[in-house]
Amino acid sequence: MGYHKAMVTDERRTKIERVVAGRLKGLACVCENFEKPHNAAAILRTCEALGILNVYIIEEDVPFEPTKGVTQGAEKWLLLHRFRRAERAIAALKDAGYAIYAAVPGEGSLSLEELPVDRPLALVFGAEATGISEKLLSACQGTFRIPMWGFSQSLNVSVAAAIALYTCARARRARLGRAGDLEPGELAQLRARYLELSLPPSQRPR
Amino acid sequence: MGYHKAMVTDERRTKIERVVAGRLKGLACVCENFEKPHNAAAILRTCEALGILNVYIIEEDVPFEPTKGVTQGAEKWLLLHRFRRAERAIAALKDAGYAIYAAVPGEGSLSLEELPVDRPLALVFGAEATGISEKLLSACQGTFRIPMWGFSQSLNVSVAAAIALYTCARARRARLGRAGDLEPGELAQLRARYLELSLPPSQRPR
Repeated sequence: MGYHKAMVTDERRTKIERVVAGRLKGLACVCENFEKPHNAAAILRTCEALGILNVYIIEEDVPFEPTKGVTQGAEKWLLLHRFRRAERAIAALKDAGYAIYAAVPGEGSLSLEELPVDRPLALVFGAEATGISEKLLSACQGTFRIPMWGFSQSLNVSVAAAIALYTCARARRARLGRAGDLEPGELAQLRARYLELSLPPSQRPR
Repeated sequence: MGYHKAMVTDERRTKIERVVAGRLKGLACVCENFEKPHNAAAILRTCEALGILNVYIIEEDVPFEPTKGVTQGAEKWLLLHRFRRAERAIAALKDAGYAIYAAVPGEGSLSLEELPVDRPLALVFGAEATGISEKLLSACQGTFRIPMWGFSQSLNVSVAAAIALYTCARARRARLGRAGDLEPGELAQLRARYLELSLPPSQRPR
């Protein structure tokens, strides 16, 4: 800690403290086969800004390749879990205790506001054109929709993800009565990680 | 009416009825000097899907040129009010009775959830790089921010607009106790417009 203290400004340390305290592990984002680099980048930036910590990426059909400039470095502050096979991602999500809900427009889905935020929740967003794979859908506890009022019955995937994650993050924070949900040990680990990442690459411990 | 009845299917008429009943005139979106066609397109698609009816566009420095494919035809179902000068847009918004609030990140702004949705509200979104003009800012009742929890202190403008419009539309509908807020005369007018737009161009009255 003394090592880091010397090289990270007080202002930066205050910032890190605030971010760590606001991180939610109990709301995860799952991206399956995103086709457009722009959407992949936008969703990472949104997750980081909203305090989502864990992003699960399934690249079974399409590699996840966020446009570099658009993420504004958000990927650095997230825990990205990448999987070539949906089965592995599902197993990891279940191991971590998440209830999995997939974004699927239409009357058969729960409304966004009905999602259970009192326990760990993972929201799945699928390919822009083809949607979420059958394999992944069948592993979900349910599906959810964003209420739609127009002739258009869908939103851009990065817009849909932003609305859903914002709404659920807000509901979860209200439920918790605090900004974040990490345990003391996890807070310490994430704080150390962010301190290290705040050093210039040449000064990071090897 | 008999004229339209003959050429618009019952299914389409039911759809039109549902959309018209869910339109909100009491929540408007204002876009100033949008630089990226992709963002311009995304915001129109979002407005249409969420039931926002009026979009005010200020093109004082930059023309508003939404990417065609990305809007998915949303512009057809919106009332777009375009202005070359911010002053004219401000006058039109005030004439229509809107309280104007600008999206400005930072602690000096109201939190999104504090915005007044019990009266007509216009939300302003500005240029991606330079933000909202001083001229427009000085005409606003106030500014609002989306609560941020990350190292990143801003969102993509189309993402920010989606979160803000979704949240305010939902709050306004809850407050109203119904989906839309048009008066009977306005409903009839919009219904007629949508019926006409549902005809093939060759069959529309001249």
